[in-house]
Amino acid sequence: MINRTKTTFFFLLMGALLVFANGNSQEHPSLILTKAGVEKIRAELGNIPIFDATLEKVKAEVDAEIALGIDTPIPKDYSGGYTHERHKRNFLILQKAGVLYQILNDEKYAQYVKDMLFRYEGLYKDLPVHPQTRSYARGKLFWQCLNDSNWLVYVSQAYDCVYDYLSKKERKQLEKNLFRPFADYISVENPQFYNRVHNHSTWGNAAVGMIGLVMGDEELIHRALYGIEDDGLPVGAKDNDGGFIKVEGQKAGFLANIDEPFSPDGYYTEGPYYQRYAMYPFLVFAEALHNVRPELKIFEHKDGVLLKSVNALLNLSDADGEFFPLNDAQKGMSYHSRELVTAVDIAYHYGNHNPQLLSIAEEQGQVLLDDSGLAVALGIREGKSEAFQKKSINLGDGADGKQGGVAVLRYGNEDMTLVFKYAAQGLSHGHYDKLSYSLYEKGTEILQDYGLARFVNIEQKGGGNYLKENTTWAKQTIAHNTLVQNETSHFEGKYEVGSQHHSELYFFDASNPDVQVVGAKEQNAYPGTVMHRTLALIKADGFERPFVLDILKVTSNSANQYDLPFYFLGQVMQANFEYTVPESLEPLGSDNGYQHLWSEGQGWPKAESTQLSWLENGRFYTLTTATGKDDELHLVRIGAKDPEFNLRRDAGFILRRKDTRNTTFVSVVESHGSYSPVSEFSVNANSSVGKLETLVDTGEYTAIAIENASNGEKLLFMMSNSDSKMDREHHLKIDERGYTWKGPFQLVKTTNY
Amino acid sequence: MINRTKTTFFFLLMGALLVFANGNSQEHPSLILTKAGVEKIRAELGNIPIFDATLEKVKAEVDAEIALGIDTPIPKDYSGGYTHERHKRNFLILQKAGVLYQILNDEKYAQYVKDMLFRYEGLYKDLPVHPQTRSYARGKLFWQCLNDSNWLVYVSQAYDCVYDYLSKKERKQLEKNLFRPFADYISVENPQFYNRVHNHSTWGNAAVGMIGLVMGDEELIHRALYGIEDDGLPVGAKDNDGGFIKVEGQKAGFLANIDEPFSPDGYYTEGPYYQRYAMYPFLVFAEALHNVRPELKIFEHKDGVLLKSVNALLNLSDADGEFFPLNDAQKGMSYHSRELVTAVDIAYHYGNHNPQLLSIAEEQGQVLLDDSGLAVALGIREGKSEAFQKKSINLGDGADGKQGGVAVLRYGNEDMTLVFKYAAQGLSHGHYDKLSYSLYEKGTEILQDYGLARFVNIEQKGGGNYLKENTTWAKQTIAHNTLVQNETSHFEGKYEVGSQHHSELYFFDASNPDVQVVGAKEQNAYPGTVMHRTLALIKADGFERPFVLDILKVTSNSANQYDLPFYFLGQVMQANFEYTVPESLEPLGSDNGYQHLWSEGQGWPKAESTQLSWLENGRFYTLTTATGKDDELHLVRIGAKDPEFNLRRDAGFILRRKDTRNTTFVSVVESHGSYSPVSEFSVNANSSVGKLETLVDTGEYTAIAIENASNGEKLLFMMSNSDSKMDREHHLKIDERGYTWKGPFQLVKTTNY
Repeated sequence: MINRTKTTFFFLLMGALLVFANGNSQEHPSLILTKAGVEKIRAELGNIPIFDATLEKVKAEVDAEIALGIDTPIPKDYSGGYTHERHKRNFLILQKAGVLYQILNDEKYAQYVKDMLFRYEGLYKDLPVHPQTRSYARGKLFWQCLNDSNWLVYVSQAYDCVYDYLSKKERKQLEKNLFRPFADYISVENPQFYNRVHNHSTWGNAAVGMIGLVMGDEELIHRALYGIEDDGLPVGAKDNDGGFIKVEGQKAGFLANIDEPFSPDGYYTEGPYYQRYAMYPFLVFAEALHNVRPELKIFEHKDGVLLKSVNALLNLSDADGEFFPLNDAQKGMSYHSRELVTAVDIAYHYGNHNPQLLSIAEEQGQVLLDDSGLAVALGIREGKSEAFQKKSINLGDGADGKQGGVAVLRYGNEDMTLVFKYAAQGLSHGHYDKLSYSLYEKGTEILQDYGLARFVNIEQKGGGNYLKENTTWAKQTIAHNTLVQNETSHFEGKYEVGSQHHSELYFFDASNPDVQVVGAKEQNAYPGTVMHRTLALIKADGFERPFVLDILKVTSNSANQYDLPFYFLGQVMQANFEYTVPESLEPLGSDNGYQHLWSEGQGWPKAESTQLSWLENGRFYTLTTATGKDDELHLVRIGAKDPEFNLRRDAGFILRRKDTRNTTFVSVVESHGSYSPVSEFSVNANSSVGKLETLVDTGEYTAIAIENASNGEKLLFMMSNSDSKMDREHHLKIDERGYTWKGPFQLVKTTNY
Repeated sequence: MINRTKTTFFFLLMGALLVFANGNSQEHPSLILTKAGVEKIRAELGNIPIFDATLEKVKAEVDAEIALGIDTPIPKDYSGGYTHERHKRNFLILQKAGVLYQILNDEKYAQYVKDMLFRYEGLYKDLPVHPQTRSYARGKLFWQCLNDSNWLVYVSQAYDCVYDYLSKKERKQLEKNLFRPFADYISVENPQFYNRVHNHSTWGNAAVGMIGLVMGDEELIHRALYGIEDDGLPVGAKDNDGGFIKVEGQKAGFLANIDEPFSPDGYYTEGPYYQRYAMYPFLVFAEALHNVRPELKIFEHKDGVLLKSVNALLNLSDADGEFFPLNDAQKGMSYHSRELVTAVDIAYHYGNHNPQLLSIAEEQGQVLLDDSGLAVALGIREGKSEAFQKKSINLGDGADGKQGGVAVLRYGNEDMTLVFKYAAQGLSHGHYDKLSYSLYEKGTEILQDYGLARFVNIEQKGGGNYLKENTTWAKQTIAHNTLVQNETSHFEGKYEVGSQHHSELYFFDASNPDVQVVGAKEQNAYPGTVMHRTLALIKADGFERPFVLDILKVTSNSANQYDLPFYFLGQVMQANFEYTVPESLEPLGSDNGYQHLWSEGQGWPKAESTQLSWLENGRFYTLTTATGKDDELHLVRIGAKDPEFNLRRDAGFILRRKDTRNTTFVSVVESHGSYSPVSEFSVNANSSVGKLETLVDTGEYTAIAIENASNGEKLLFMMSNSDSKMDREHHLKIDERGYTWKGPFQLVKTTNY
């Protein structure tokens, strides 16, 4: 022990001299922990409850792993399989053990990291490419380079923590046989993985950059920030998710991966699920750059978008903190995930110490065991925490923020939340769902976005990877609450076409909490057809809770069949239309997702306002939609052509309008009443909407009357279809009565019009 | 005010003299509150937290109703409709207002009760029978006498509370025009409702008895306790649930309704859902009898069965306190219901002050505002509360406890709970499900009992009443986890036949928590066929969590088709058998419930042990079942022939064995691993069962080997099929190796047999 200490001291001295000599190296640790930070942490230990609790938990976890012994099996499995899960666990534990060594100053953790690193050194030297062949960029430890990059992002932190504990010779051996070849393999040997604008590449860039920072390897750092200069990739190649590997004029590297997919508002074009996934490498590498390359001012890059994006992401969650499943997204993922612990702590520490982030950290119940986690723990200890206020927001999409976007309308304390997607394609994880929306009441989905068709990391389900139903169902337009023309998906489901277009915001106005409105237009999903959807979240007297008014105006130069689905969740209570149910179930169609829908019933409107009500989670819901006598009504169930039982058997209602050029779909979705199976009381089980009438519908104006079923009062919603300026005055005559208002819309109560 | 007080005093004096004179009258209140009790409550108020909190809530509720004003509409609706719900609310509020008057001594509550009583007096005098015609016993305020009885049970308590507040003349008017005719209408004018052994009649008896006690009307009290002597009903008549109104030698009245449906263990033959419903009139009338007719010793009747039944009922709930949905039962009903607040408080006060009941009361968060609620509040205040320990129990069914029963096997702290039903028919709410079982992990259903097909009190769903799918699906055998022979239900689904039979306990042994076993035989469900089912809840090394071994031995004098369904909940993960899925869905059969099952897939075993695994609520589950090459495997989905969408679209797996006389179904149901959509970690996703083998299966013995997939070790379960004596020694030779054990079964670990 004494001998080693001496030797260490000698190398430390040598290291210091080297720093002095070439200016490239630095003290260790320096990625997420700093020497000064470690000292502060040690001084506060025992007096920072949330930090102490996290430390205790992490220590117990790592101690248990140390007791279990090290296993670095020969790579063999897809995700969910033993070798995959073992190596994944190893890198997570390595990172934690490194941190424990720094904080607790207990050599056993350094020894454990060292032992495992050398096991990997021995394994990696002659390791062939992973035997599983499904990936467009196979890794070595894992079936895809992506997971190898995950490994390096975490392990470089562990290496940073034990850097000074290792001898120079040991470091050299590790760097020569493990880290440098590892970094090269996931970058120059796999440019199709590394040199893109994609969350995969972000992981790769961060991995290469972080190990580069620890090693003081300028070549790797440069490669991380700016990508590979000449990657030799052909333009137009695709990965196995169908995403482009290279497009004309493509940039690469970490900075490009900040510039391109993040909009100035901090919206990440792939959607919140992947933003969450990408946040970790974005922020942890940024933190390391901030510490080691402060001159880069990485947190100020693109007007501080990295920290803004944390706020955007938190706002893209429901009342339970679960992210809205836009595009490919596994439901249930939430801001309780480890990536968001990182995001919230870093955003707090390197941002402006927003006290609202502290309440999220409290909900998470843990902090990072590093400088930023300490800052959060201190903030909480000092009682600075404030409730996080989610707001109605409109987030632009695209590098310039002008490629459509995502709007969230919220009433009250997330009593009703509407998520409207009028964004760009969202790279390879995008869905063909222009102008779709989903609806939440607190944490309960009322109208659902299906999310992805995949069971992430569950090996039994296609190796934990994307299932083919993700393409044939989840991405298709009919899987979403938006318009389908002639049973084909938007852009014919062609990624190349979809990637060139985005919807256009018409206007967003959440200034009046009782009448919040967003609208957007889509002209490219079906050439020759323009869709203009307006969604209003309205709280009005005579309606128990807020409701959604949904106006979808379709204008086309050809006659088409239009399908407008509503994927409600829960048990059907009542329908005011006649329908038949078949003796045997047939799929609703043969392609574009229709093959996955069983036709459970077909109906015809009996009234001008068709109603369907259902019960979910103790509340009643009613959809009221204006219908004509030629409309068809379809009750559907997901699950046809699903031989592996990969899809949920959820219900849907589809309004079908055939042989039509121009038409406007007008609907109200309403929450009302309650039912408890304990008290068995049923309260306000009936809709408050008596009738929905389209009073005016021209190219210029649309006016809708919503009649209250109880008192006959009418709400009149009027809007301009062609001028969304907030200061423009409009005049409209309805049944001999004139209305005047300013701005794109107006809601008035009337008993007479 | 002074005048009235004087008058009141005069009448009080007169009342006291009357008591003295005829011994029939008594002081008021005396049903659930006593004069002494009220004094004690008043003295403790403000110092009994749970009581104070309840009082505050009830006061707020009643004050709001008083502010709203009284409405006693002309009866018109079924349950869920306005007039029904209004009158229901009225009686609940009247009872509360009466109690508030006593406790708070605030006349406004007495005035409110008085005003509403006279509104009812005015309404009832000339009220015709309720216009809705569906009931076999139509009420006047409600569509059935049952609800009218509910009304009287509650309102008699309100009347008791304000009795002394009213003048004698006022009382006379109420009794003559409202209470006495009301009591007569639900009894002598509706003997088909009143004179049965049925929860309906229990309500009727209690209603008549309680108003009789308040009025001091001996005739009513006698009628309540012993029924109507000559009811003139024909033997064999049925109600609209298909239940018998009168059978040969039928007894009637409250005492008969205790004697007959309760077993000596306190199991109520209709099952826990209806026991919960009936508990209120049972206990509240018993409490009243205890106070006014102590000489009856009602709480000691039948060896104290009423209080025992509360314990039985609490043990018939899952970890969330929800009752097992045996027979007709709405899921979600729990010991948080108002009826169970009554049951727990009364059982505590009039039983032996079991401190475990206090923790249930704490969970309920409220107490009765009466003498028993005071006792509970004081017990909690004094810190006497102990956790309620649910145990493995075996409850006999039938008046003598010998008509089969229900067994509950529990492992740990409800980590795994198995509910085995080998009971009698359970009156008109019984299902045809001999030897069926359901399985729970904490509060999560793993193998479900479907429960009823009804949305209680939701008017949109068939007036809130039983739906026709209750008969065509929920009651049928195929809707349960038990054997169906030749696609017909037990007893051919005939109530008359089913009512004559019950299964027979073979043995129950929960003495070893790691190997708990229950078995029963059924000889009558299919004449000529004997079913013998043994269920073992086993916790063994090498298995992460406890599992169920399910042995169903079938012996028949004819060749039959046997179907054994398992209604699992969750998403299919993996199957080790080949199957095809159809292009269009057809029902699995045409009758006896089969018409409600879509055939989603049909398969054939590929191995001797067929496996199906699924994911539910973050845990993996696997069913392993021993199969032969001629077996058929069916994947089904509930919901065919369901035009009103009354059924849940839940999944099932059916093992079908055709053209077979004698056979034994051997299965293991196992919980293992976990999955979190937040961490995306998948842990132990694979079954630990490698193989299931039937080593011996004779008339005398069955021996099953369960091979552990990880280590190849085998568990050997041996049982005697013909001798269940606990002290009998058995000898069995398997593959040249001899085994000796005592009692009906033995579990050994072996690597070699």
